[in-house]
Amino acid sequence: MGPPRAINALVFDAYGTLFELHSLSALCEQLFPGQGAALSQLWRAKQVEYAWLLTLTGRYEDFWYVTGSALDFACRMLRLPCEPAMRTRLLEAYLHRKPYPEVVPALKALSRYTPAILSNGSPRMLQEVVANAGLQGMLSHVMSVDEAKVYKPSPYAYQLAPQKMGLNKSAIGFVSGNSWDVLGARACGFWTCWVNRDDSPGEVLGLSPDLIVRSLTELADSVG
Amino acid sequence: MGPPRAINALVFDAYGTLFELHSLSALCEQLFPGQGAALSQLWRAKQVEYAWLLTLTGRYEDFWYVTGSALDFACRMLRLPCEPAMRTRLLEAYLHRKPYPEVVPALKALSRYTPAILSNGSPRMLQEVVANAGLQGMLSHVMSVDEAKVYKPSPYAYQLAPQKMGLNKSAIGFVSGNSWDVLGARACGFWTCWVNRDDSPGEVLGLSPDLIVRSLTELADSVG
Repeated sequence: MGPPRAINALVFDAYGTLFELHSLSALCEQLFPGQGAALSQLWRAKQVEYAWLLTLTGRYEDFWYVTGSALDFACRMLRLPCEPAMRTRLLEAYLHRKPYPEVVPALKALSRYTPAILSNGSPRMLQEVVANAGLQGMLSHVMSVDEAKVYKPSPYAYQLAPQKMGLNKSAIGFVSGNSWDVLGARACGFWTCWVNRDDSPGEVLGLSPDLIVRSLTELADSVG
Repeated sequence: MGPPRAINALVFDAYGTLFELHSLSALCEQLFPGQGAALSQLWRAKQVEYAWLLTLTGRYEDFWYVTGSALDFACRMLRLPCEPAMRTRLLEAYLHRKPYPEVVPALKALSRYTPAILSNGSPRMLQEVVANAGLQGMLSHVMSVDEAKVYKPSPYAYQLAPQKMGLNKSAIGFVSGNSWDVLGARACGFWTCWVNRDDSPGEVLGLSPDLIVRSLTELADSVG
């Protein structure tokens, strides 16, 4: 069971969907022995929270600022002395997130769906992470919510995809490893696929993904 | 340094400000030995997340539904078999949250500020928790965001306070133990006080509380 026939474009989330997050914990561990996992988890949780808080309160700062602020908070919370050089190194690592191992073959197999990205990342962050991973040629659009000045899961963020791609909403499917992101796209009326890599329980909030897969390989296989 | 002269009403958040949350972990522990702290923490985090996700995606369900859904998710995540009778017992415990020990004397000392509540809780949840704690006579208004159908920290939630109290924004101060709640009220332009009971680091998102205290006693003392 792949996407329905009406879908002819797939829009992917970036962090946690195409690009893995948890190798950051190795760098965090190197800089702060014994605290790597705690720091990388709190940093990521706070990054998402700050993006949401800005949108909820009607404010906007770009995702580079959000990512840096979240790191600063996480270090203070864990009482880790994060010197400027360390901070720079941790932030720059965000530009070098590796794709999950199946991403390249899966994007190739899905090429007829003109794969694109819509991410909370800032334009510069996305350009660099895509270039560093060598994915440029495989993506039709790399879209940042920065243009809408609101973060996913606001509907105003998802609406950028049909606008920028010149497609009807019903022709676009959203693919994300973040269950809240799937929920947001689904609430907007898009077809959605949740990449549930960790076998997590689904959100209990009244909307379900149209398709749940364990990896992008499974999505590629589902469309033959 | 108390509130400025222009402030003549103080609006308090409920859960985590007047009513403590963590005694829930004792009941969680009783029902699921060894998992009490994990369950109560995840339940609370998910409750806040679900309220935000609904508002971010333009949806609304009341806080009783949100609280129940968050409990269901937390139990699935921790693989705890929560039978219907246990679920009811845990949810009902929300109606019997105890006030922090200093709340009654502090509200008495602050009575000239006509203390009120503005909470994400549903009207029924708030009525019951206030009645069970014997605080009715000490509060001029018990306001639920349910009337606006959005959750704090949306500005539309905070605006209920001046509307319902018939006061100018500049006459109202917001007091909360939740730093994100203080941030939301502050972004709306209200005077704010953060009750930082755990000595947590402040949020790194560009707005600071006007006053930070360790307990409501300290707020009461600050106004003499």
